[in-house]
Amino acid sequence: MTRIITIRREFGSGGRELGRRLSEALGRAYYDQEIISEIAQRTSLSETYVRQIIERRPAMSYPIRIGRSLHMAVMNPLLAQSNEIFKEQCAIIREMANASDCVIVGRCADYILRERKPFRLFVYADMDYKLARCREKAEVQEHMTDEELKRHILDVDMHRAAYYNHYTNQKWGERSTCDLCVNSGTIPPKVAAPALARLISEL
Amino acid sequence: MTRIITIRREFGSGGRELGRRLSEALGRAYYDQEIISEIAQRTSLSETYVRQIIERRPAMSYPIRIGRSLHMAVMNPLLAQSNEIFKEQCAIIREMANASDCVIVGRCADYILRERKPFRLFVYADMDYKLARCREKAEVQEHMTDEELKRHILDVDMHRAAYYNHYTNQKWGERSTCDLCVNSGTIPPKVAAPALARLISEL
Repeated sequence: MTRIITIRREFGSGGRELGRRLSEALGRAYYDQEIISEIAQRTSLSETYVRQIIERRPAMSYPIRIGRSLHMAVMNPLLAQSNEIFKEQCAIIREMANASDCVIVGRCADYILRERKPFRLFVYADMDYKLARCREKAEVQEHMTDEELKRHILDVDMHRAAYYNHYTNQKWGERSTCDLCVNSGTIPPKVAAPALARLISEL
Repeated sequence: MTRIITIRREFGSGGRELGRRLSEALGRAYYDQEIISEIAQRTSLSETYVRQIIERRPAMSYPIRIGRSLHMAVMNPLLAQSNEIFKEQCAIIREMANASDCVIVGRCADYILRERKPFRLFVYADMDYKLARCREKAEVQEHMTDEELKRHILDVDMHRAAYYNHYTNQKWGERSTCDLCVNSGTIPPKVAAPALARLISEL
């Protein structure tokens, strides 16, 4: 049986719900926001700030007019800080995986734990489903129009992809880096979780 | 329960085996080569010829020096023939879907039957797995070197994609056009089939 399950997901797809349900069905630990809290605690940075850093490609945060050079990491305090945070992130995720079988959502866990061959899940859905789900879960401000909300969903995913691609040298949504890609718009997390729990138990 | 299951697959990934096992687990009809045989019968063309046409983007078969124009279909007998074959293909696939619940491998079935909302599976694997599987199944000439076999695998998929994209106006391997994408290199068809049969039964 595969001990570690990692989940990458499009914003609004319900990947987090699938992860939680899967962890319950398998009786495993579940890590998501806990990783950011732990990084914040270890680095004395605020959770909000860590989240901002962790969800953007570090180099993009640097003003364009400064240009890029081989010394970028030295010259760019944001990039250096992001690298420091990624180092903590790696340490924490490895500790979690060592402590017990678990389900980890996001945070490049599939790459960080690649030597343990985790089961790598990717959750996606079409835009209409994600819009409806975001409205239902009120994951974003209610004042957004559908067009603004759609832009927001695409932005979050773009930044997730940029951060993932930067630190893993892989492509965030590429199927070759996944074991299973689930369309939660047509396979609801409630139905997917028990079926995937059985599948994973048999591997 | 979803009545129709369609499978797109990378060459050498074992998508056909997964389809066959899935049809057995669900007690449904299974269609694959039968579609080509039926087209050949109805059009009085040989199976080999139908297969050649059906696995290439029609326009690509036409000599480049002739150029393209709005009258291409009229001027290009190969494209006209390919369109004719696609028309038969649509009719046969709809007849099969009307006759009984079934699993259909390839042939743009997911698109042709889109109004019936089939369960759309995509099967893929990494190149090492596909090379090993092709060698084991002897699906290609034994005299090929690994490099030649790899080229052959990529070529078959390129042509499958070109044919699919041409007739469906969708992208062959794009996850947004699938309900589930399975990496058969890490989830063997033997394990995947019963688990997916249960999952599909619950939808």
